[in-house]
Amino acid sequence: MPRTPRPGGRTARTKAAVFEAAAELVAERGHEAVAMTDIAKRARVAATSLYRRWGDVRALLLEVAVEKLAADSPLPDTGSLRSDLRVWARRIAASLRAPGGSPFFRIMLANAPPPDDGDMGRATALGSRLQQIAAMLDRAAARGEAAPPLMDVIDHLLAPIYMRALFGAPIGAAFAHDLADRLCGPAKGDSQI
Amino acid sequence: MPRTPRPGGRTARTKAAVFEAAAELVAERGHEAVAMTDIAKRARVAATSLYRRWGDVRALLLEVAVEKLAADSPLPDTGSLRSDLRVWARRIAASLRAPGGSPFFRIMLANAPPPDDGDMGRATALGSRLQQIAAMLDRAAARGEAAPPLMDVIDHLLAPIYMRALFGAPIGAAFAHDLADRLCGPAKGDSQI
Repeated sequence: MPRTPRPGGRTARTKAAVFEAAAELVAERGHEAVAMTDIAKRARVAATSLYRRWGDVRALLLEVAVEKLAADSPLPDTGSLRSDLRVWARRIAASLRAPGGSPFFRIMLANAPPPDDGDMGRATALGSRLQQIAAMLDRAAARGEAAPPLMDVIDHLLAPIYMRALFGAPIGAAFAHDLADRLCGPAKGDSQI
Repeated sequence: MPRTPRPGGRTARTKAAVFEAAAELVAERGHEAVAMTDIAKRARVAATSLYRRWGDVRALLLEVAVEKLAADSPLPDTGSLRSDLRVWARRIAASLRAPGGSPFFRIMLANAPPPDDGDMGRATALGSRLQQIAAMLDRAAARGEAAPPLMDVIDHLLAPIYMRALFGAPIGAAFAHDLADRLCGPAKGDSQI
């Protein structure tokens, strides 16, 4: 899948270097052992400019995690909701099994808003997943397909994958497909990818 | 619901004091700001004996969290699986909404085994939930009721509640009941608590 080229400005290059340094350090030591000064040193930038832009190391690592996780599971467009959800669920499951994927998932969990916060939109990483689900459901509606409510996709497709990733239970392709099929009801001969 | 009386030995009393001190400190500051020496001071015991028994503060706090979370949602025995699951789901949802409940949930998440661990049993807190689910399913089987697979209860009842707790989405009684009803299929006039 082709990536959009990075804008070539100095700020964009610095950001790319900072993100790369942060991602490397997280992969090497785990996010709890990564300090702002470590990232600055590895990226060859001043720590003060990192503090100015991101405030603290948690905010920076959360942004890195969101970018990594989104890149790991881009939005499919297969022509049917069932197939879209199957491919999407499979990609998310695979990215959480991948050696580089899990540490970023943990950063996202560690930085979720407090449970009594009441504002789902503040969970940045989940926010991007909500947008992806809404896009798939909108396309299904435009095609005239029946579609489950958005929260059902969160509760019965995303939640089981995250839960299994968190506790180290198996999350294979068959499991991901089964979650999509449960949401879409019995198959009626549409293409299954 | 009656509690089993605490065994009266000195070790048991010390453990109770340590757990109470740890739970207070977690509620006051959040688990990331609680050190072994803080707990020792509050419980009026030697820090060295805490290190000897629990190894580190994370291990101690995980044990406290598991005990707190289990006490918040004891196992119901209503006579039907649907009602058992409804009550159990509702209690877990309520305990995660409670002001004292969420910090312990976060300790449990923060101390889950790495996703590539592959051994679900190592997640102590989830382990006690697995036992509760197995007990409800066993009783259902003994009564001759149809029952979903254990992993379905994890994936489609526990995971959605945990996910919503984590991201601050609403987890009311109606939501908990709906999860139980989905697992048990359409109601056939059995008692719904």
